[in-house]
Amino acid sequence: MSADLPRLAVVGAGIRGAMFARAVSQNPAADLVALVDRAPDLGAERASELGVPAYTGVDELLSRHPEVTAAVIATPDFAHRAAAVRLADAGIDLLIEKPLATTVEDAEAIAEAVERAGVRAVVGFENRWNERFLEVRRQLAGGEPGQVLHQVANLNDTRFVPTEMLSWAGQSSPAWFLMPHTLDLATWLAQAQPVEVYARGVRRVLPALGVPTWDVVTASFTLSDGSLVSLNSSWVMPTSAPSVFDFRHEIHTEAMTYHVEISPSGVTRYAPDGASWLQFGVYERAGRLRGIPIDMIDEFVDVLGGAERDLPDLRQGLAITRSIAAVHESLATGGPVAIAV
Amino acid sequence: MSADLPRLAVVGAGIRGAMFARAVSQNPAADLVALVDRAPDLGAERASELGVPAYTGVDELLSRHPEVTAAVIATPDFAHRAAAVRLADAGIDLLIEKPLATTVEDAEAIAEAVERAGVRAVVGFENRWNERFLEVRRQLAGGEPGQVLHQVANLNDTRFVPTEMLSWAGQSSPAWFLMPHTLDLATWLAQAQPVEVYARGVRRVLPALGVPTWDVVTASFTLSDGSLVSLNSSWVMPTSAPSVFDFRHEIHTEAMTYHVEISPSGVTRYAPDGASWLQFGVYERAGRLRGIPIDMIDEFVDVLGGAERDLPDLRQGLAITRSIAAVHESLATGGPVAIAV
Amino acid sequence: MSADLPRLAVVGAGIRGAMFARAVSQNPAADLVALVDRAPDLGAERASELGVPAYTGVDELLSRHPEVTAAVIATPDFAHRAAAVRLADAGIDLLIEKPLATTVEDAEAIAEAVERAGVRAVVGFENRWNERFLEVRRQLAGGEPGQVLHQVANLNDTRFVPTEMLSWAGQSSPAWFLMPHTLDLATWLAQAQPVEVYARGVRRVLPALGVPTWDVVTASFTLSDGSLVSLNSSWVMPTSAPSVFDFRHEIHTEAMTYHVEISPSGVTRYAPDGASWLQFGVYERAGRLRGIPIDMIDEFVDVLGGAERDLPDLRQGLAITRSIAAVHESLATGGPVAIAV
Amino acid sequence: MSADLPRLAVVGAGIRGAMFARAVSQNPAADLVALVDRAPDLGAERASELGVPAYTGVDELLSRHPEVTAAVIATPDFAHRAAAVRLADAGIDLLIEKPLATTVEDAEAIAEAVERAGVRAVVGFENRWNERFLEVRRQLAGGEPGQVLHQVANLNDTRFVPTEMLSWAGQSSPAWFLMPHTLDLATWLAQAQPVEVYARGVRRVLPALGVPTWDVVTASFTLSDGSLVSLNSSWVMPTSAPSVFDFRHEIHTEAMTYHVEISPSGVTRYAPDGASWLQFGVYERAGRLRGIPIDMIDEFVDVLGGAERDLPDLRQGLAITRSIAAVHESLATGGPVAIAV
Repeated sequence: MSADLPRLAVVGAGIRGAMFARAVSQNPAADLVALVDRAPDLGAERASELGVPAYTGVDELLSRHPEVTAAVIATPDFAHRAAAVRLADAGIDLLIEKPLATTVEDAEAIAEAVERAGVRAVVGFENRWNERFLEVRRQLAGGEPGQVLHQVANLNDTRFVPTEMLSWAGQSSPAWFLMPHTLDLATWLAQAQPVEVYARGVRRVLPALGVPTWDVVTASFTLSDGSLVSLNSSWVMPTSAPSVFDFRHEIHTEAMTYHVEISPSGVTRYAPDGASWLQFGVYERAGRLRGIPIDMIDEFVDVLGGAERDLPDLRQGLAITRSIAAVHESLATGGPVAIAV
Repeated sequence: MSADLPRLAVVGAGIRGAMFARAVSQNPAADLVALVDRAPDLGAERASELGVPAYTGVDELLSRHPEVTAAVIATPDFAHRAAAVRLADAGIDLLIEKPLATTVEDAEAIAEAVERAGVRAVVGFENRWNERFLEVRRQLAGGEPGQVLHQVANLNDTRFVPTEMLSWAGQSSPAWFLMPHTLDLATWLAQAQPVEVYARGVRRVLPALGVPTWDVVTASFTLSDGSLVSLNSSWVMPTSAPSVFDFRHEIHTEAMTYHVEISPSGVTRYAPDGASWLQFGVYERAGRLRGIPIDMIDEFVDVLGGAERDLPDLRQGLAITRSIAAVHESLATGGPVAIAV
Repeated sequence: MSADLPRLAVVGAGIRGAMFARAVSQNPAADLVALVDRAPDLGAERASELGVPAYTGVDELLSRHPEVTAAVIATPDFAHRAAAVRLADAGIDLLIEKPLATTVEDAEAIAEAVERAGVRAVVGFENRWNERFLEVRRQLAGGEPGQVLHQVANLNDTRFVPTEMLSWAGQSSPAWFLMPHTLDLATWLAQAQPVEVYARGVRRVLPALGVPTWDVVTASFTLSDGSLVSLNSSWVMPTSAPSVFDFRHEIHTEAMTYHVEISPSGVTRYAPDGASWLQFGVYERAGRLRGIPIDMIDEFVDVLGGAERDLPDLRQGLAITRSIAAVHESLATGGPVAIAV
Repeated sequence: MSADLPRLAVVGAGIRGAMFARAVSQNPAADLVALVDRAPDLGAERASELGVPAYTGVDELLSRHPEVTAAVIATPDFAHRAAAVRLADAGIDLLIEKPLATTVEDAEAIAEAVERAGVRAVVGFENRWNERFLEVRRQLAGGEPGQVLHQVANLNDTRFVPTEMLSWAGQSSPAWFLMPHTLDLATWLAQAQPVEVYARGVRRVLPALGVPTWDVVTASFTLSDGSLVSLNSSWVMPTSAPSVFDFRHEIHTEAMTYHVEISPSGVTRYAPDGASWLQFGVYERAGRLRGIPIDMIDEFVDVLGGAERDLPDLRQGLAITRSIAAVHESLATGGPVAIAV
């Protein structure tokens, strides 16, 4: 362990947390100190693979490792607040998975703790590290395409995600799980904030499968620049879809149209038991993980090391949580809901 | 001219009207009697190609040709009423291009005239003759896919359509010109009617080009069965798009997802001056026109000849006009608008 | 039965024969007289659906129905000769399914009989009725694209075709079953004839599944105009492919490139048990079959009725059989094989 | 400059050489020493951007920089030999752009020099660093797909490449420029070597444009394992193609089919002046180049630093040059040509 490198813990040792821990571990500019997970067995198993200790709570982490300087929070979406506030209070820099929180109250509590402590905080809107969107944003910022008029983003999951992958889908929704991605992208591309939303949803399939949440949600946002964002997310696509998610984003500007398709990877495999698009979101090369979420961790480490990077901050995290909360308010009331910018 | 065949006139001799006239003319089960167009030169030119007379008004048609039994109305969208009411009053069966009318008042006037006269009337929602949608509807009606949950339909035109193809685009909008197609399809597939809509639009590019209408409109419909329909239509796509329209329709049901793409034809042509998808909406074979709108005319003639066909009727035409009028009301008021079923 | 209409029999009552019989039956310009199939039960069942008698041999047909004027031959590919020669000798006009025959000797015997008798004969290269190819050919003939330089056509089937659909796959091959389609198209588009071929194949999967034929064949043709045609056909694609065939044809000319994709239909269906492209090669509308092979039958009937049509004739059928026989000779000898034009 | 890091020169300061130099320059595990280019102005300009000196010949490089330990050779394809042999003789490790050489004699001379000197040498078949192909190869090596039966790879360029991008296209061909990529991939995926080839080509468009080479080449290879490889390459695609190259690779195995499409990037841009697929082969992030050729340089540096990597070696480089030379021999003779393994 180098005395002068950032020293990170990862909180949450599920699929994403374990990947983030490995990303930290392989980054020569950071030290991985420990993993934290409420489930002692899971945490211990993942931690031992990486040669670090595991703890079941943030307090224990802080008391045993006063040298920790930063943390990645990858607990379930609804469970970010306690760890984030406690760590911020202790002066720890944070990368918090999207969405920042699933209630405005939680998001504000985290934002207040971060501001009070003066720590650095990044929200893990990982699509911002996708070069496809980065290049479109660069072109939009260059001015040639003119202003954005309208964006349509469909981001759907197969029913595998809410019924098998996530144990806590009933506490989430396609809006909480998927729209933070698309709404963050849309507002980042347009460089504007949501000011109103009207949303509608259907609950029929998932409740019957024992997951009490929305099957599909559609939300129509007006942004502060007068442009429009139409988001559609389903959590009940058939599992025969060639990838677990289906993601298509259209951007219409004054002079151009961009069609972005994220799911088709360029490789279609027809196997005896089905067809699939091979996925390269995260992959291994020469013993190291590579891919978009790894780039996100690496840039977080860069920032911890003092570099200047344009990363999604708490203000944006808060805006997205407020906006998705407004989606659910619109679903409940049936009318459009204003979003405080 | 056979005494016992339906005898048709076509009102409106633009691109569509001329095509319909030729479709009638080549159908052995019908006789084409005359063309009507306000522009004497245009009407005369098109009529002479088909060997029939041209008139500049419906009254002249009726007085000169009391033998007419049916008519196709293909005037500009906003100009259906006068001809339709006059012809219905005269006992003439009608095929009226979509949308039935661009005001609820006009649509109701036509519907009343048709009911009063007891004539047959069909509204030309031509996508219903597209086998892709017919087969999806057949499968939905068969029950295996379960109920429809959500549909997303993007139907866009390049800016060529409002700025060059149509002289009257300023009296229309992407909602009036494009959404009757997608909303009719969506409600026909779900077998349900719209009960509420929330719409938003942007006006920026087309007004600056001298066409005082919306660039893009997005509309979120709730149907009577609780399912949802999200429609997006732009009139400002760049002309480099490989076809003049871009049409993609997604249908999410309880058990399945259908992705329907209408614009890619299967043939991409890279020519020195650009790339395009060859289009086969209407084409000629052995001297005869073929394609979806020709099928529509042929089935109208079948009905005139006494056959039973399940064609879009005035009730549906009226519902779509009411719905698109509600879109514009929502655009004006900023709130959701209830649609009388 | 009208005295002056062509009176047709269909020989072979399998999937294709039954479809052709129905196509004749629904055509008002022809009369369907009878079906012929070696299997008495199959023939009788299919014939009774259409209200015509069935026979087990061509001789019986001719003796019982001296009024027959034309026939469609849809027996297995290797079994065209006997029926075709017998019918030609009797003065019957013929539509013979592609390939004309699977030996040069058979093909020449048919051609001689047809010439001797002076009957009309058409070979059923049905892709010529696909408007996508018709339009490309029209453009090529128009001269703007310049001369064709190179064509690459991949036409593959899933292993369902040789192992389940065809009982006689062991007497055929991907070259005999699939390349007549692509080679006919390529030579028709280029308006040139094959003069040499070099072919290679692999036999591994199908023999192990009890079908003693080639898994894949690749063939490289030189045409009489110096342009090139590369054909690839597999018979062992996995059954998870979204359609039973995969068909992609590229045409490179002096000024343009055309990419033709036939398999994706525009409708992708994700069902619980797999993904598929809905297929519209043949479909039913208002009680009638429609589609490419139906158009082929209808134009054959037009020709029987005296119309002029540019249909694939025996000379082309013979050239294709010679060429595919040369493919198999090249597979056997390992060297290029000249093709007599 | 660290005493213990590999010290590299880049020979050839064109588009590729400049990119490689920057890749070396940004790699913390290597030092960039100098650039070499016959054109003094070009070399000086590119070198000054990177803060290193430029020389016009390899001898000058070696005399001025005895500390150089490795070099990247990125001269025109036909001009690798002199620099490679001279550098190998001086004990310098080499990364040589594909193809190793454009004559068998040159390739053998390089291979002999490398062997004689005992230096490390890598051939820059950069598609091996494309994760799409890496993953397919991993699956093939895993055994589940069974043996490869047939591969079809179409890799085409628009006519921009031979007429505007390359000054030396007349000394190359679509076979020399494009097929080393596809043949290397195909043999690497199948883990087998070419043993015979039959090739055909057309020369019509490019000679008329002043570039005396083939417009298109098609080549049919038999591999040592009995599997087949069909390669098609055109250099005359229209410039309206959405990317400068069009690359599609199909792999048929005993149990599976893989379709790999490299050109569509997931982002289609419709701009006022044309449609394009944004390309991400090489891009910049946080001031650093990223992408497939950068990965190739980085792994070459890893190897120079002592790591074990499975990189394309001279034996493969030689096999590919022999094979493409055999393609041209077959083009000249019209018959199949055996390839010495």
